[in-house]
Amino acid sequence: MDNEEVSVAVVGATGYAGAELIRLLLAHPRARIAMVCGQSKAGVPIAEALPSLRGVMSGEVEQFDAGAVRDRADAAFCALPHGASAPIVGALRDRGVVVFDLSADFRLGDRPTYEQWYGDHGAPERFGTAAYGLVELHRDELRDADLVAVPGCYPTSAALALAPLLKARLVEPSGLVVDSKSGASGMGRSPSPTGHLPEAAEGVRAYKVAQHRHTPELEQELSAVAGQPVRLTFVPHLVPMTRGILVTAYGTRRPGVTAAQCTEAAERLFEGSPSVTVLPPGTNPDTLWVRGSNRAHVGYWVDERADRVIAMCAIDNLVKGASGQAVQCFNVRFGFDEGLGLRAPAQWP
Amino acid sequence: MDNEEVSVAVVGATGYAGAELIRLLLAHPRARIAMVCGQSKAGVPIAEALPSLRGVMSGEVEQFDAGAVRDRADAAFCALPHGASAPIVGALRDRGVVVFDLSADFRLGDRPTYEQWYGDHGAPERFGTAAYGLVELHRDELRDADLVAVPGCYPTSAALALAPLLKARLVEPSGLVVDSKSGASGMGRSPSPTGHLPEAAEGVRAYKVAQHRHTPELEQELSAVAGQPVRLTFVPHLVPMTRGILVTAYGTRRPGVTAAQCTEAAERLFEGSPSVTVLPPGTNPDTLWVRGSNRAHVGYWVDERADRVIAMCAIDNLVKGASGQAVQCFNVRFGFDEGLGLRAPAQWP
Amino acid sequence: MDNEEVSVAVVGATGYAGAELIRLLLAHPRARIAMVCGQSKAGVPIAEALPSLRGVMSGEVEQFDAGAVRDRADAAFCALPHGASAPIVGALRDRGVVVFDLSADFRLGDRPTYEQWYGDHGAPERFGTAAYGLVELHRDELRDADLVAVPGCYPTSAALALAPLLKARLVEPSGLVVDSKSGASGMGRSPSPTGHLPEAAEGVRAYKVAQHRHTPELEQELSAVAGQPVRLTFVPHLVPMTRGILVTAYGTRRPGVTAAQCTEAAERLFEGSPSVTVLPPGTNPDTLWVRGSNRAHVGYWVDERADRVIAMCAIDNLVKGASGQAVQCFNVRFGFDEGLGLRAPAQWP
Amino acid sequence: MDNEEVSVAVVGATGYAGAELIRLLLAHPRARIAMVCGQSKAGVPIAEALPSLRGVMSGEVEQFDAGAVRDRADAAFCALPHGASAPIVGALRDRGVVVFDLSADFRLGDRPTYEQWYGDHGAPERFGTAAYGLVELHRDELRDADLVAVPGCYPTSAALALAPLLKARLVEPSGLVVDSKSGASGMGRSPSPTGHLPEAAEGVRAYKVAQHRHTPELEQELSAVAGQPVRLTFVPHLVPMTRGILVTAYGTRRPGVTAAQCTEAAERLFEGSPSVTVLPPGTNPDTLWVRGSNRAHVGYWVDERADRVIAMCAIDNLVKGASGQAVQCFNVRFGFDEGLGLRAPAQWP
Repeated sequence: MDNEEVSVAVVGATGYAGAELIRLLLAHPRARIAMVCGQSKAGVPIAEALPSLRGVMSGEVEQFDAGAVRDRADAAFCALPHGASAPIVGALRDRGVVVFDLSADFRLGDRPTYEQWYGDHGAPERFGTAAYGLVELHRDELRDADLVAVPGCYPTSAALALAPLLKARLVEPSGLVVDSKSGASGMGRSPSPTGHLPEAAEGVRAYKVAQHRHTPELEQELSAVAGQPVRLTFVPHLVPMTRGILVTAYGTRRPGVTAAQCTEAAERLFEGSPSVTVLPPGTNPDTLWVRGSNRAHVGYWVDERADRVIAMCAIDNLVKGASGQAVQCFNVRFGFDEGLGLRAPAQWP
Repeated sequence: MDNEEVSVAVVGATGYAGAELIRLLLAHPRARIAMVCGQSKAGVPIAEALPSLRGVMSGEVEQFDAGAVRDRADAAFCALPHGASAPIVGALRDRGVVVFDLSADFRLGDRPTYEQWYGDHGAPERFGTAAYGLVELHRDELRDADLVAVPGCYPTSAALALAPLLKARLVEPSGLVVDSKSGASGMGRSPSPTGHLPEAAEGVRAYKVAQHRHTPELEQELSAVAGQPVRLTFVPHLVPMTRGILVTAYGTRRPGVTAAQCTEAAERLFEGSPSVTVLPPGTNPDTLWVRGSNRAHVGYWVDERADRVIAMCAIDNLVKGASGQAVQCFNVRFGFDEGLGLRAPAQWP
Repeated sequence: MDNEEVSVAVVGATGYAGAELIRLLLAHPRARIAMVCGQSKAGVPIAEALPSLRGVMSGEVEQFDAGAVRDRADAAFCALPHGASAPIVGALRDRGVVVFDLSADFRLGDRPTYEQWYGDHGAPERFGTAAYGLVELHRDELRDADLVAVPGCYPTSAALALAPLLKARLVEPSGLVVDSKSGASGMGRSPSPTGHLPEAAEGVRAYKVAQHRHTPELEQELSAVAGQPVRLTFVPHLVPMTRGILVTAYGTRRPGVTAAQCTEAAERLFEGSPSVTVLPPGTNPDTLWVRGSNRAHVGYWVDERADRVIAMCAIDNLVKGASGQAVQCFNVRFGFDEGLGLRAPAQWP
Repeated sequence: MDNEEVSVAVVGATGYAGAELIRLLLAHPRARIAMVCGQSKAGVPIAEALPSLRGVMSGEVEQFDAGAVRDRADAAFCALPHGASAPIVGALRDRGVVVFDLSADFRLGDRPTYEQWYGDHGAPERFGTAAYGLVELHRDELRDADLVAVPGCYPTSAALALAPLLKARLVEPSGLVVDSKSGASGMGRSPSPTGHLPEAAEGVRAYKVAQHRHTPELEQELSAVAGQPVRLTFVPHLVPMTRGILVTAYGTRRPGVTAAQCTEAAERLFEGSPSVTVLPPGTNPDTLWVRGSNRAHVGYWVDERADRVIAMCAIDNLVKGASGQAVQCFNVRFGFDEGLGLRAPAQWP
C-alpha cells in the first residue's frame, strides 16, 4: 500500500474555513498538516485559537512566511479574505508551492469584470492563471493545476443546480433567478450586528440584493456551460442557522421539459461523482442532510402551470462550499481518489 | 368617550393562531372575549391549554356550540383547520354571528378552482359570500361584510409586495416568481418530524414546490389588481425560526422602471395604512423587525443588469399573516379605527 | 376618567433595554415619551436606530442633556452601562428628575461591598440613596422614591424564587446554589464572539463562575429577607436563545418541608401581585411562557431523597428582568395601578 | 498491517443514536457494518430512513432477527428504547453475539433499585451480567465483557465531572447537586410538543426534577468511586439546541481545596485518555467545542466565598453520551486502540 503523504500548510487557519480545513485534513489519510498560519493569532496555541482542537492538536499558530511554507510543505491552502489573499498566493507560487486559494481573487477570468466588481487586483501578473476549482465542471484542468481558485458557497451550490439544465438545454439561458439562503457562518468569524444572536435568530433577510460579488463568477461558469452569455438575478439571504446553503433557482423551461428529464441530466453530469447526489423528483434538498459533509444534494421540479423549472441544491457552505471543495481539488491535483477523506456522511441531526 | 364593546368568541382557540387572537384581543380596547372554544381541550382551564395565559386569564376552554356563541357574542373568530371550518362558519352565519374565518375555506371566489385544489366544499351554500380580508386591497368591501375570509401568511405577504407593482404596471404580469421563507409556527401546533427541533434547526428546505394550495388565492388577488390573469410560480420554504415570513418576489420590469418608482407606487397604495411600512430602496425587510406586530415591511430593488424587479415583504405569520389581520378586519367591519389595538411595535430583539 | 400623563425620558434608548422601555411605554396609558436619548446614535431617526419602530415612532435620538430632560420630562429611565450611569443619574437628580436607573450603580447599600466588586463609584454623594426596585420585596419604599435602582435579570429571578423560602424559613440560609440560564440578549447589543450566532447556537457554557457582580446584590436582598447573612454560589450560563432567564436554585430543606408548603409560602408573599404567578408543584417554569411579558413564573419541588428544595423561576430578562420592572416601579412611584400597561401575556409561541 | 475487521450489526438503527452509530462505524477502520436493523422502517432503503446517508450507503433496513445477526456479525450495537432492549439483548447473548447495549436495561447492578425506578426487568436472567461502559472508570472490566451497558449522556457527563473529586476526596460525598442542560436530540426522534420548534426555541425548562431515572445510575457509579454511598440531587433541563450536554455540578469542598487540585485530580484520572480533555481553571467547557466528537471537556472552579467546588463537563450527548462511547467500548473489548475512529475533533462552528 502506497503511504506517500503530501505535506500541507493552512494559511488563515483560525477563521471558520481554516478550522474546517484542519478538521478535514486531520481525517485525510494522505495529507499531513505541516504548518498552521494565522496573522492575528500568531504565537497562540492552536488549541486555544480553535477550541475544538483541544486535546486533538498541539503546536502554535505561526506567522505566515512564504519561505517557511515552501521548506515544509508541498501545497498550501489559503483561507484569507478577498484582496488579502492575492499577494500571499503570489509569494507562494513564486516559490513553487501548489496553492488552493479559497478567496475570490483568482476566480474570474475576465480582467475588466474583476475590476468592475472588486477594483484593482493584488497580484495582477497571476491573474487568469488559476483553474476554477469546481471539480464537477473542471475535473480535467485541475489535474495539473498549480493554482486553484476554489469557488465559494453561493456559486458552487447554484452552478451545481443549474449546470445540468443549461448543458442539456432544458431551460432558457436568459431570465434565471437564483434565490439563496445561507447560514450565518458564511459571514465569517468576525462578530457583527447581523450575526449577533439576538438579531440573527428569528430574522430572515436578503442582503446585497442583485449586487453580490459572486454574481459574475456564477455567470462565468454558467455561460461556459451554456455556450452563450448567461445573465441572471442573484439574491442572497441570511437565515438563522450556523451552516448550510440552500439555493432555489428558477428558469423558464424549454417546451415539454419534465422533472424526470432534469433529474436525468443531472445524473449524467454528476455520474461517478463522490460529492453530488441527485434526489428523485419530489424529494427536496435539505441543508440538514448535508451538514458537515462534502456532499451536494440537488433536486428538480417543474411547475407546469407556469412553465418553469425549479432547481434546488443544498450544501454545507464551509465544506462543499469552501474547505471540503478545496480538499477535493487537492485530491484531483495530487492524483488521489477524488473522494479520499471526504466520504463521511453529514452529522445528522 | 365611547366605550361600546363588541363581544367576541374565539373558536379553535388553543392553536397558535387562536393563542395570538386572544393575546391581541386582550389588548384591544373595544373587544371583550366572551367565549373561548376548542375541541380537544374543552373543559381544560385556558391557562393550562395556553400556558402564557397563566395569571392572565381565567375560565375554561369550552366546547363549540353555535347557539351559545350567538347568545354571548356579536362576532366570532374561527381559527380552525381548512375543511373543518366551513360547517362551523355556516352554523354561525345561520345564527347571524359576524364571522372572521382564518381558514382557507372561503377565500376563493371561483368554485372549480376551489375544487381543483381542495376538493368538495364543506358549506357550499355559503361559497362566494365572503369578503377577502386583506384590508389593504379590500377595505371598502369589508365595512359591511358579515363573513370575512382572512388570508393566510403566504398570500398576504406576497400580495402586499406585488400588488403595488401590478397596479402601477411596473412589472409584467407574467413570469412572476414568489420565493417565501417561513418560520415553523406556520405548521401549527401539532408536532411533526419536520418541526422537531433536532431536524428543524440547521435545516432549510422547500416544500410543496409549485403545488401549495395558497397559489390560486394569490393569483386571484393579483389578477384582480392587474386586471388580467396572473399565473405565477410559488415555492414556500421552511427556515429554522418560530415566527415570520419573508417573501422575495421576482418580476420582469417594464422598461426603465426604477426602485424609486416601485417604492412610490407602494407608498401610494398603502398611504394611511396603519399596518404597512414601505422601506426606502436599499433597506431590506427583516422578519425580526416585525415579529409580534401587525406590521408589514415592504421594500423594492431593481436589478438593472437583468431587467428584474425584486419585491420583498416581511410579516409575522401569526399576526399580519393571521390573527392580527383578522382583528384589523374586525376593526374595519365594526367601524373602529383600523389600527386599534394593533399599533404595538415588534418585540425586538 | 383621570387622564393625567407623566412625561418621561428614555436615556440610553438604543440598546435592548432601551428599546424594550420604548415598547412598553408606548403601550402605557399614562406615560408619554417626551425624549429619547442615546450617545452613539444621537441625530439618527429613532426608526433607523431601532428598526422595529419604523412606521411606529417618529423623531430623532437626541444627545443627553440633563437640563433638557428636566424641562421636558417628570421622570427618566436610564438604561446605561454600569459605571456610565452614575454621573448621569446624579445630574438628573440634581435637577429634581425622578430616576429609574437600570444599571447596577445604585443597587448595593454597602459601600465596601460595592468597591470590592465594582471599584470607585461614579456619584459617591448619591450612594445609598436609592430604593431597590424589586417591587415584590420593596413596594412600600418605592411609593416615594425619587431614585430607584432597578435590579437586573439574575437577582430578580433568583430573589423571586428564593425569598418565599427564606422568609418562611423553609430552607437553610446557608449552602444555597443558584444556577441561572440566560438568553443572549442579556449580553446587550454590542456584537461579541460569545454572541456571534455560529458560536452561540448549539453552545451552552457557564461564565464568570462564582464571580458574577450580581452575586452581592442577590445576597443583600436575601439576607434582608432571611434576617441573617446569606452567602451563596451563583453560576450564570449562556444558552442559545434571545430572551429569557431560568433560574434553578437549590437549598437544604428544613425538616419535613414539602413542595406544597413552598408553593403556599410563595402564594402568600406574592398575593395580589400583577407580575408573579406561582405554578403548582410538578409544573415547571418555562422561559417561553413569559417571553415578552412582565411576568415571573415560580415553581417548587422537593427532593425527598436528598432533603433539598428546588426553586425555579422564569422571566423575560428584558422585561421583568429590566425594562418591565422599571415600568412597574414607575407605576408604584406615581400611584398608578401596579400592573398598568404591563398585563399583556407572553408572546407565545 | 493488520487489516482484521469486526463485523457489526446496528439494531435500532433509525433513531438518532443509531444514525450516529452508523456515521461513526463508517469511519472506523476495523469495523464493518454487516446489518442494519430497525422495526418501523424495515424494508425501507437506509438512505431514505436516514437521509444523511443518501449517496453514502446502500441497502435496506432489515427486520431484527437474532439468528441472522449471529450469522453475519460478531458484535451488535443495540440502540433501542429502555425496556424494549432487554429481550433482544438476551436473544443475542444466547447466540453468543457480543452486545453493546445503549439502553438503561443493564446499567444498574442492584435489582431492587432497578425495580423501584423501572419496574420489572425484561431479561431477568441476564440482570447484573453487564460491564458498565464508562471506559474511563471501567476500562479493565470492559476488555473481556460480552455484554456492555453503555451509559447515557447524563450519567456520563456528571460522572466524568465528579469522579475525580470523589476519588481524590476533594469534595464531601453528601450534598452534591447536579444541574444538567441538554439539547433536544436527547429526547429522540419521535416528535413531541416539547421538541416542536416553536415551543422549544426560546424555551429553557427543567423536567423530571429530582425524579429522572438516570439518578440511581449516577449514584451507583459515584458511590463506587467514593467508597461510600452517594446520594445527590439531579435536575435535567432542556435547552434550545440539537446536540450537547453541559453539566454544572456543585459540591462542598474539603477544607482548603483549590481549583488547581481539582484540575490535577482530573488530569491524573484521565491520563492517557483519548476522549477526555481537562481544561485549565478559568476556561469553562462549552458544548459547541465538542459537538460531533467523542470528547468530553471537564473544568473546575472553586467558590472560596461559599466553600464550594463547581465541576463542569460538556459532551455531545449522541457521541460521548451514546454512540461514540459504545464504539469506545467496542475498541477496548476487541483490543483496538481505544481512540480508533474516534479522534475526529468537533465540527466547529
